[in-house]
Formats: sequence, C-alpha cells, structure tokens
Amino acid sequence: MEEKGVGQSLFSEKANPSSLEWIEFFQEKIKAANVSFLDRFLTLNHPADIAEVLEKLEEDEAFYVFKHCDSELQSSILVEFDEEFQADLISRFQMKEISPILENLETDELSSLISEFPKDKAEEILNSIDQEDSSQVRKQLTFREYTAGRLMNTVFASAVETDTVRKAIIKLRKIARDTDDIYHLYLTDENNVLKGYVKLKNLFLAPLNTKVSRLMKTGFTSLHYDTDQEEVAKIFRKYDLVSAAVVDDLGRILGRITVDDILDIVHEEASEDILRLGGVSEEEKLTSSVLTSVRRRMVWLMINLGTASLAASVVSFFGDTIEKYVLLASLMPIVAGMGGNAGTQSITLIVRNLATGDLTTENWKAAIRKEGLVGLFNGFMVGITAGVIVYLFTGNFALSAVMFMALQANLLIAAVIGTSIPLLLRVVGIDPAIASSIFVTTFTDVFGFFCFLGLATIFIHLL
Amino acid sequence: MEEKGVGQSLFSEKANPSSLEWIEFFQEKIKAANVSFLDRFLTLNHPADIAEVLEKLEEDEAFYVFKHCDSELQSSILVEFDEEFQADLISRFQMKEISPILENLETDELSSLISEFPKDKAEEILNSIDQEDSSQVRKQLTFREYTAGRLMNTVFASAVETDTVRKAIIKLRKIARDTDDIYHLYLTDENNVLKGYVKLKNLFLAPLNTKVSRLMKTGFTSLHYDTDQEEVAKIFRKYDLVSAAVVDDLGRILGRITVDDILDIVHEEASEDILRLGGVSEEEKLTSSVLTSVRRRMVWLMINLGTASLAASVVSFFGDTIEKYVLLASLMPIVAGMGGNAGTQSITLIVRNLATGDLTTENWKAAIRKEGLVGLFNGFMVGITAGVIVYLFTGNFALSAVMFMALQANLLIAAVIGTSIPLLLRVVGIDPAIASSIFVTTFTDVFGFFCFLGLATIFIHLL
Repeated sequence: MEEKGVGQSLFSEKANPSSLEWIEFFQEKIKAANVSFLDRFLTLNHPADIAEVLEKLEEDEAFYVFKHCDSELQSSILVEFDEEFQADLISRFQMKEISPILENLETDELSSLISEFPKDKAEEILNSIDQEDSSQVRKQLTFREYTAGRLMNTVFASAVETDTVRKAIIKLRKIARDTDDIYHLYLTDENNVLKGYVKLKNLFLAPLNTKVSRLMKTGFTSLHYDTDQEEVAKIFRKYDLVSAAVVDDLGRILGRITVDDILDIVHEEASEDILRLGGVSEEEKLTSSVLTSVRRRMVWLMINLGTASLAASVVSFFGDTIEKYVLLASLMPIVAGMGGNAGTQSITLIVRNLATGDLTTENWKAAIRKEGLVGLFNGFMVGITAGVIVYLFTGNFALSAVMFMALQANLLIAAVIGTSIPLLLRVVGIDPAIASSIFVTTFTDVFGFFCFLGLATIFIHLL
Repeated sequence: MEEKGVGQSLFSEKANPSSLEWIEFFQEKIKAANVSFLDRFLTLNHPADIAEVLEKLEEDEAFYVFKHCDSELQSSILVEFDEEFQADLISRFQMKEISPILENLETDELSSLISEFPKDKAEEILNSIDQEDSSQVRKQLTFREYTAGRLMNTVFASAVETDTVRKAIIKLRKIARDTDDIYHLYLTDENNVLKGYVKLKNLFLAPLNTKVSRLMKTGFTSLHYDTDQEEVAKIFRKYDLVSAAVVDDLGRILGRITVDDILDIVHEEASEDILRLGGVSEEEKLTSSVLTSVRRRMVWLMINLGTASLAASVVSFFGDTIEKYVLLASLMPIVAGMGGNAGTQSITLIVRNLATGDLTTENWKAAIRKEGLVGLFNGFMVGITAGVIVYLFTGNFALSAVMFMALQANLLIAAVIGTSIPLLLRVVGIDPAIASSIFVTTFTDVFGFFCFLGLATIFIHLL
C-alpha cells in the first residue's frame, strides 16, 4: 500500500508532489543545498515521481536537481517529461554532456525528443551520439509524425523461423541488455519478413532443441509503419495486444510498439477531444499561466462573439414584431438554446464514434437517418411541452403554436446539422472536435431566431 | 499488412464487420445454413472480429453462429462482448451447456459476467461450475464494483523469495497452463506478503541455482484491492506498468491486474466524460435504437427546457425596458451566450483535470483564483470588442457601455462558477461531467439577462 505511504510522508524524502507544502519544503532543501537530503530523495523515489516534482519547481531549481542525478537516472526522469520540457532541459547542457544522457534512451524516445529541436541543433545532437543510434533515429524521423513508424522502438527480439529455441534464447540474451520490455520474440524468414511471434513464456517453457516455428503464433500483431496512432490504439484495444510488430511495405519487420505507449495515446487523444469540444486548447493545462490561458481561449470566444453577432442581427431584423409583442423576446432564447443543446448531443455522439472508429464511411447515412428521427421525436416532445407551458401562462394559443412549430423545426434541424457537420469536417480533414460546435450552434441560433420570429411575424395578427 | 487484407475481402470468409454489404452477405450464408462457409469463417478470424460480426446480426443469427463454435472459441468470443450481450447470450443456453463455456474464462472475466445476472440465476451458474473457480468468484464479488479487487485476475505466477530460479520456473510452468498473460513472477514471504517481482525475461536469463530474491525488483507495483479503477489506471499510466499485484490490508497478494484491462478502462472513462459533458448518456451507442436514444436524451433536454424557462422569466420581467428599446432584445442573447461559452471552457478544463488527478484538494484554490483572473481578462477583452461594435453600429455610447459592463461581469462570474460548480459536485459525490453544464449555463443565462437588462433599465434615460 505504497499510495498511503506517499500521502503520509509530508516532510520526508519521499516525494509528495500533490502537496504544495511538500514542494515548498523541498525548495527550501534545495536553497540550503542539502545534498544528503537530495541523494535520499533521488534514491527513494520512482523516476516518474521525481519528474512530477521537478515539473513543479522553478526552472533553475529543476535543473539543479536534474544535474545532481547520474546519467542513467537522468534518462529515466527525462522520458517522463513532456517533449517541450525535455527540450528546454537538454538545451541547458553543454553538447558533450548530452550524449551520456541520451545514450540510455530507447530509439522511439530519442526520435521524439530530437524532433523537438530546430534542424541545426538536432543535427548537432545526432552527431554527438552513438553512430548506430543516430542512424536509427535519422531513419525513424523520415516517418510521418503520429504514425506507427514514429512510435515504434527499433530494438526488439527476433529470430529466424528455422532457429531452435536454444539459438533464439541466445539472440534474446543479447538484446535483453538493451531493452527492458520484451514480451514477444518475433520470427522472420531469411529476408526479415515477419512470419509470427512466440510468447516469451512459451519460448522458455519449451525444450531447447524445439524449432521456434513450432511455438509460433500468427494472430494479428503487425502494423504498417504509416498507420495513424489513433488506428494503432484501436487495434491494440480490439485485440488486447501487449506488443505489436511494425513492418514495411514488403512485410519486413522494422520495430515494435508496446502497450505502455498506447495507454498514453488513448489518454491524450481523449483529453484532446474533451478539451477541444469544450473550446479549450488541448495544450492548456491547469498550470498554464493566466496570460497563456487568456490568449488561447480568447480566439474561441472571439469567434463565438462573431457568430453571436450574426444571430443578433437576425433578431434585430424582427424589431417591429418584438416591439408589438414583447413576450417574444423572452421566448426566443428558449428556441435557440434548445436547438443548441440538441445539436450538441448529436455532435458529441458523432465525434466520439468517429474517434473510436465505430462511425465509418459505411454507416454515416444510417447515422444521419437515425439522428434525424431522434431530432423529430425530441423536437415534437420538447415543442409540445413548451407549447403547453406557454399556453398555460399566456392563454395565447397562436403563440403556443408558434413556439411548438419553431422548436420542432429547430430540434430536427439541430440533429441533422449536428450529425452532418462533424462528418463533413472529418471528410475535409478538419478535426470535428474543434470546429463542429461553432458551426452547429451558429446554425441553431440563427435558424432558431429566424424560425420563431418569422412564424410570429406571419401570425402576428393572431397573437 | 492484414488491415489491407480485411478491407479487400468483401465477399470472403474473412470478416469485414465495418461493411454492411459483408454483413448482409454473411446473413445469407447463415440462412442457407452454409456450414462449410461458417467453419472457414470461424477458423480464419480473430475472436474479436467474430464478436464484432455477431453483435451486428439479429439475436437468433448470433446465437446460431455462437452455438456452432467449440467451447474454447465460445469463451474467447464471449469476453469480447459487453456484459449485457454476454448475459443475454448465456441465458439462452441450458444450465449444463454453460459450464464448459465458462470454464475457460479468467476469474476477472467470470466475476464480471456473473455480476450481470440476478442473484438466483448467478447462484445457479456458480453451483454448476468448477468448485475452485466458483469460490474464487464468490470471493471476488465481495469487493466493490469498479475497484482493483474486481478487475484483478486471481491466477498469477508467484514464488517464495527464498526459492531458486529452478523452483520458481517449475511453479511457473504449472500456472502457465491456466493463463496466457504472464509478465512478472511475484515474490512473497512465507505469509504470502508481497515482497517484489521478477521480470520474466530476467528469470529465464538467470542461472538455475540463483535465488530469485537476487533478481527481485521492488518498484511500485502493488495496489490495494479497494482502489478505484480510475486511480488504478492513473498509476498504470504514471509508472508505465504492464502488470500490477493487488494486495489486501496486510499486503498479502490476492491477484494481479494486466494492462489490457487498463486500456479499456482509460478508453471507457474518457468516453463517459465526453458523452456526459455533451448531454448524452454514456450508454448511448450509434447503434442504439431511435426510441432508446430519444428516451435517454429527452431527460437532458427537458431539464434544459426548465432552466431555459427560468432565464425566459427573467427576460419577461424586463418587458417594459425592451418595449422602450427593442434593440436590447437582439443584444441580450450575446451576453448570455458568451457567458455560457466562457463557463463551458472552465468546466471542461476542471472536469478533465479532476479526471486525470491533476486537480486535487491541494490546488483547487489556485485553480479558482487563476480561472477568475482569466475570466476577468477575457471578459474585459470580449466586453470592449462588443462595446466598440455596438457603438459603431448604433452610435449609442450608453448602450455600448451597458454591453461592456454586462459582458465583463458575466464572463468573470462564468469563470468562477464554471470552476466552483464541478469542484462542489465532486465533493458531494455527483459526477461533475454530467451535471456541471446545467448549473453553470443556467447561471450564466439568468445572470447574463438580469445584468444586461438590469443595467439597461437603470440607464434607460440615456439610451
């Protein structure tokens, strides 16, 4: 029950990065240059916890603690930071100090770090590290960002299918020094074309003279290097994979992806969608400065101000009608707002199902048809309810009929538009999570006001 | 590159569940009772793909295909379904046919399946299966739902720390028959208290006479059985775990959780938050029937209708003012709407950071303070912009000043409320994703209308 342990150690060397008091306490120790405390802190804590603490310190303090670690620990801590922080930290080192830190990184980590630097700096770093590593990284950087080729680790255990278990274990022993996460031994033919894999367990439990091909499994475990990471995550989830080989156009193995990277991707892609749907930049964190947050959210708000003005101009067009019957002014936001709510429901369902891959080019028509029906029914029910309420309060049947018709129309349109816009945006290559709601709510506002006030204008003599 | 292969095989035995044509083609084969086709279909496809196809068939068709599989394949397919579909399918079997299917399930899968049935039916099933399995399941069902205790698999590889590698491998061999996913060998003392773990790789690469304790790692890998699954997922992500032991109050090992289950949880929890934030039930799928969707979304819409009526009544209170200056009616939705947008931004950020654990009881005050400042700045900027636009179009300085003040006030309030409400809901145990926006947008609507029309009423003689 280490979790409890962590929570209790308020003023010990055990990190408690969620406590402001502990961070302040730690900062004092740094100011006092308390080296023995620092050493115990670095020994007692997991690199992930150390990284979490460092991210909460001032940059100079973080750099001081980081410099105090040996190069192996530095590598383990480094990979826990996001890429921006990594690059910042690395930039503070002399070139010759960098290579021992980077040497311990896996190739995928190294590639993603290097890609953060400007071209000349990246080149300088690549020239300073191990020849073999740097040529791996150069090759990996030719793949598109956010694809399997970038995610993969190029160090993996493989054997030829004609090998015996004995020979395969010898090959494995060699690679085991360079990487920690070995779950499968990949089997290839003599041309390096992937044939299947052997589970580590089965390899070690088999007699040494068995041909590895007899232990081979051939289920779905290979991905093309150009597969998008979102797609990669879907495949891992669907087939419960722990590790998957990445292959080139000819089926030759290039590397492998492990599930720990996938966990981060699933988490990040979901965060991105949630934040974007809410009009917040996916890069905004709780710890972003006020100014950064203001700048990032302002864009969204200003766009919304523009669309709201459009809706306002529709209303002002009906000034005469409102003047004659001022109650319309109180009811019209209901029509517009309810359309927005129903539209948001459709957007949400569509965006999520696009992300999970449940919505495809095959079933979009069925989706629009279904959402349209839902909009029709919900519009009817909401319209009837609102109409009855209006009648009860005003006794004006014509007004309640206008209310009903406008709500029915707007909720139907909201559902159809709320389904179509995300689909269209996806087709033209814009992230539906980021832009759908702007288009849809503008539409439901404008149409809602227009429809309600238009109907009211037509029936004004009855109101 | 099997993915491509799948896409091309439109009318072959290779499943293509994303194609409606393929599903129809498959349904015809079933109607024709084409057994040889069915056999090839079941041999050629991964259980996950078979399950995906079955979910798209009529219930009778799905049952027909399922009955056609041998019991091992039935188990592999069964675990791919969601629990509801699992229970439906199992209910169609005679009691004596069920136990061979359930025998191949892991204990965590069995527990989650059994928990779907009513008490007497569950009891009946438990009595029909293997004694050892059923007592494991009974024990597991005493743990709270959505905790580590429910997620864990009670079959795991362990050895005593004083064992040699040779002895540990013998123990491992025994357990390897019952479970596929072995990544770690857990080491305990003679009282079954967890001491650490050995990576499979290191176990097999070590000389047979080595004491396993010499290979032991002691990093963070144990979870208390009562830990919430969301917390479990966080820990897996933070420490890049593949597998973690679950322990009781005394630190004795009860089982272990593997990362494939965590991947599903991360995915599901994110889906839940996205859908709830958008006013859609987390159980709603693209394939839900129109009536199910209507019923589920209706609740949300009706609540919104209620709150919108509240806002409308605020507007109607200012009927005289609007009658005197009808332009107010066009501008007031801007004030209310912009407050809603800014509030949604705050809600989104807070809900996401609550879910990821970045927002805690330690830093909520800082969050409110920061969001307040962001609201102040953004309110100022949006207010100024809108004020200037109003002045340019109307030349009415008083009106543009009212517009500025109302927007400044509403966006500031929106940020503070949008931060506080989700925090409050979390404290009282309501999911902030589901209920925050109702409270916040009601507030920004009511306050926005009140503030704008109230100010306008005060300054009416200047307008």
